[in-house]
Amino acid sequence: MHTLLILSRDAAQYRDLILSADLADLRISQSVNHIDKVDFSIAHTILLGEPDLCAQALPKLPQIKWVQSTWAGVKPIIDIDATHFTLTAIKGLFGKQMQQYVFAYLLYFSRQIQEFQSLQRQHRWNPIYPQGLDDKRIGILGLGSIGIEVAKTAKHFNMQVIGVTRTGQSNADVDELYSISQAKEFAPSLDFLVSLLPHTQETEHIINANFLSLLPNHCVFISAGRGQVVDENALCAALNNGQLKAAVLDVFENEPLSRDHPFWRLDNVWLTQHTAAISRPAEIAGIFIDNYQRYHQHLPLENIINRSKGY
Amino acid sequence: MHTLLILSRDAAQYRDLILSADLADLRISQSVNHIDKVDFSIAHTILLGEPDLCAQALPKLPQIKWVQSTWAGVKPIIDIDATHFTLTAIKGLFGKQMQQYVFAYLLYFSRQIQEFQSLQRQHRWNPIYPQGLDDKRIGILGLGSIGIEVAKTAKHFNMQVIGVTRTGQSNADVDELYSISQAKEFAPSLDFLVSLLPHTQETEHIINANFLSLLPNHCVFISAGRGQVVDENALCAALNNGQLKAAVLDVFENEPLSRDHPFWRLDNVWLTQHTAAISRPAEIAGIFIDNYQRYHQHLPLENIINRSKGY
Repeated sequence: MHTLLILSRDAAQYRDLILSADLADLRISQSVNHIDKVDFSIAHTILLGEPDLCAQALPKLPQIKWVQSTWAGVKPIIDIDATHFTLTAIKGLFGKQMQQYVFAYLLYFSRQIQEFQSLQRQHRWNPIYPQGLDDKRIGILGLGSIGIEVAKTAKHFNMQVIGVTRTGQSNADVDELYSISQAKEFAPSLDFLVSLLPHTQETEHIINANFLSLLPNHCVFISAGRGQVVDENALCAALNNGQLKAAVLDVFENEPLSRDHPFWRLDNVWLTQHTAAISRPAEIAGIFIDNYQRYHQHLPLENIINRSKGY
Repeated sequence: MHTLLILSRDAAQYRDLILSADLADLRISQSVNHIDKVDFSIAHTILLGEPDLCAQALPKLPQIKWVQSTWAGVKPIIDIDATHFTLTAIKGLFGKQMQQYVFAYLLYFSRQIQEFQSLQRQHRWNPIYPQGLDDKRIGILGLGSIGIEVAKTAKHFNMQVIGVTRTGQSNADVDELYSISQAKEFAPSLDFLVSLLPHTQETEHIINANFLSLLPNHCVFISAGRGQVVDENALCAALNNGQLKAAVLDVFENEPLSRDHPFWRLDNVWLTQHTAAISRPAEIAGIFIDNYQRYHQHLPLENIINRSKGY
């Protein structure tokens, strides 16, 4: 019998979803939404939950053998440096949402929705002719499962896809492949840049003043991986001095963003609230259930995190 | 030797593009941008130009054998009831632009860009969670080459595609097929409705008060075919009384739209200026050049208009 601790803001939903799957040899020992409610005297062996909550509990859960994160990013758990368990994350679920988020804004800018709104307010029939996305160059930082879905949509709209990855692993939807150290070669020709990078030691502040200075000033930057990838002071400066056309920001170094942060006020910032791709309990529970069946049958788990890479 | 009259707002560009193709047995007899400049004493045999301009000139051009329209819609020429020439239009060129136009607005609404802008102005971190386009139902009125491209993008984003056509001809990207007379069956379940219909006797005011009353009030209507398809008074009423969530309008019964038209002022109207899919001379010239080579070799022309259908 395996004993599952659910430690999640959506604990009640996860409990119901998992109970209804009627899994063999699994007992839900506790399902709680706060670490203060965890009974550490129980020998929980499996943990399902948000990485920030799990990270607090894991040092006091020595018998846990497997942790299933409900997020794609697991840095809080990697940072606690406990390795007595296998860590799996969510992959492949966020790509479809991210395609729509990224292209909502790419099309917003390329179809000049804001400019047409301004003409409308003036009651002015004075046609402007948008160029469209065709042959425009999109740089995608991070070619994991999410980046590959974004590349697929970019090709659907006939864009040129510049993939930036450290693994050097390409994909049919990527036209040109670079590593971040080759920024001088790829950055100056980009019309759009999308960061989907996880937060690791290597990616922290990779989007800094030096990198931003290489982008052309008609470039639109979309930040939808992790906020720590971006040096926010450098980005503010680039947006203030017109070095970038605009930024669409979904993630930040500190969330929630404080009320006095300059990003709120910049008129070339489009701000969303870490909502580009969200964890929906029904989908996450499905992934847990599938992975549990593998665990129970001693098969390799899906989406195991490589701790040294951080993703 | 064939003699070509170019009668177009972009006459000079067309002349240069066609000259550079160095076509056999073709002489450009005139290239002008206004009917007053046409020399009707010349025996022009081929006409290239915008349908509104061509329609004025054709009654005085009895020796014209072939007219290549620079637009997709050719109603002005069909209305003059002269049939001494073969009429070809532009097809297949506007689908890619229309995909981007339609999905710019579908994603704008589904990703709630306006709501996030409003939160930003208030400096409020108060996440809202967009639903995305997945499984949403899009009705496409008109399944010509443009409608089929829009359907393709809808499937890319995992939508349910409801095609509405009088031919009954389906397509792999269409999930359900109806005729307009079946509006009661398909309209109430639509999340989005896109009109790409041409202006013909049969389509005039097909979007009327009765049809609009069948749509659910969360539905967004996009009008990007021809303005005469829509009863504008009925649409204004539906938008004013909340029967529709919003309308994105690119085409109108009278263009340019007069400054005092109520559409300018409605805050649930997003107005563009017949710019969703535009004729770019380089692309149009390419189609003319290709069709001329067929004409010269006595091969069937591409994109011949069926006058009785009107497209």
